Amino acid sequence: MSSHHVVREKQEPALIIANGEACSEDLLGQLLEWSPTVIVLDGALERVLDLGIKVDVILGDFDTRNPEELKIQQYPVKVVHTPDQEYPDLEKAIHYLIQEEYPAANIIWATGKRADHTMTNISILCRYANKISLKIIDDYSCIFPILPRPHVFKKWYKKGTNISLMPLGTTTGITTENLMYNLHEGTLQLGYRNGSSNKVLEDGMVSVDFSEGDLLIMECND
Amino acid sequence: MSSHHVVREKQEPALIIANGEACSEDLLGQLLEWSPTVIVLDGALERVLDLGIKVDVILGDFDTRNPEELKIQQYPVKVVHTPDQEYPDLEKAIHYLIQEEYPAANIIWATGKRADHTMTNISILCRYANKISLKIIDDYSCIFPILPRPHVFKKWYKKGTNISLMPLGTTTGITTENLMYNLHEGTLQLGYRNGSSNKVLEDGMVSVDFSEGDLLIMECND
Repeated sequence: MSSHHVVREKQEPALIIANGEACSEDLLGQLLEWSPTVIVLDGALERVLDLGIKVDVILGDFDTRNPEELKIQQYPVKVVHTPDQEYPDLEKAIHYLIQEEYPAANIIWATGKRADHTMTNISILCRYANKISLKIIDDYSCIFPILPRPHVFKKWYKKGTNISLMPLGTTTGITTENLMYNLHEGTLQLGYRNGSSNKVLEDGMVSVDFSEGDLLIMECND
Repeated sequence: MSSHHVVREKQEPALIIANGEACSEDLLGQLLEWSPTVIVLDGALERVLDLGIKVDVILGDFDTRNPEELKIQQYPVKVVHTPDQEYPDLEKAIHYLIQEEYPAANIIWATGKRADHTMTNISILCRYANKISLKIIDDYSCIFPILPRPHVFKKWYKKGTNISLMPLGTTTGITTENLMYNLHEGTLQLGYRNGSSNKVLEDGMVSVDFSEGDLLIMECND
């Protein structure tokens, strides 16, 4: 797969391919088409190479594969060796993109299969929300963090679109507009007071803002 | 599928079939064999009936199906009509089992597909941990909450077993024994300091206890 569009490097989001469950080829193709940089975690490398995808950056500890061999196969490719165990590979890829001053990245293959990996991958998004714009995308969900006030999240949605607000822990001062169940300076607490399975009330702008804590927006479909 | 074992009602865990992604037939078969009571959320009902499973309790608002018809097909069956929208159906099923004094339940089809449903279903386990013993099980993961001190979680594991500790928000005073990365009165915070991808150090008992917050154990495999 290759791009026939003119994409300006570091203006369109980079694409991180993590090592969870693969998404549909349709979704993969759409995202590849618009991504100037494809960064692959080494745990997913074999599966990515099998799909014939041109990789720009490979990141990991390369326990099982010689990176020199990849440099020939995938030339030009950047190999980022990250042997330390302090952070999971997905976070190292995010660190790399922040350091390289990418403003945004989409992350695929980050969900499904092991629930611990899924939940860890989703939860780390908030940690980097003020440094890089991140989205986890799979066949059923698009997940991204929003920043606390003075930021206000605003986006146009079609009536009936599923929108879930997912706090990581306790999130306070949440105010929403144009949802079926709106909050006015409300509090959500993961596991206790969930903001899941809300819907857009009318075609138009939805706005969400909050004062403290971490908040993810999840756009999901069956 | 039917049980040829003598299972004493309300001593073995009940089985809740939620409306997420189906698990393998192997796992389903194993769990059905030992479950005295099978409770199905109405969103999963068609798929469950298609598999020829004998259902004991059906719970939901029955928007799309006449429960009278089911009473004949599945006799004897208990139909629990829960039209209120305050809680999601999975929580209503848990409320029902608590009220009926079941000590434990396994929950399947609660993960996969929509990430908002998966995360909501996993996160509500802690809320009921002092009333009923709950486990979410899928093909890759077994997830259950543990209670704060004076309770101490102890279980025998084989060396190398994957164990993740997943806090919902901030969980403090965590002490572990026999893990590769042990904590001593440590703090975990979802998204910031994760306890994911730990392993059992040696064949033997693992112990985990903590002082405040919510903590899930996740036993996961690829």
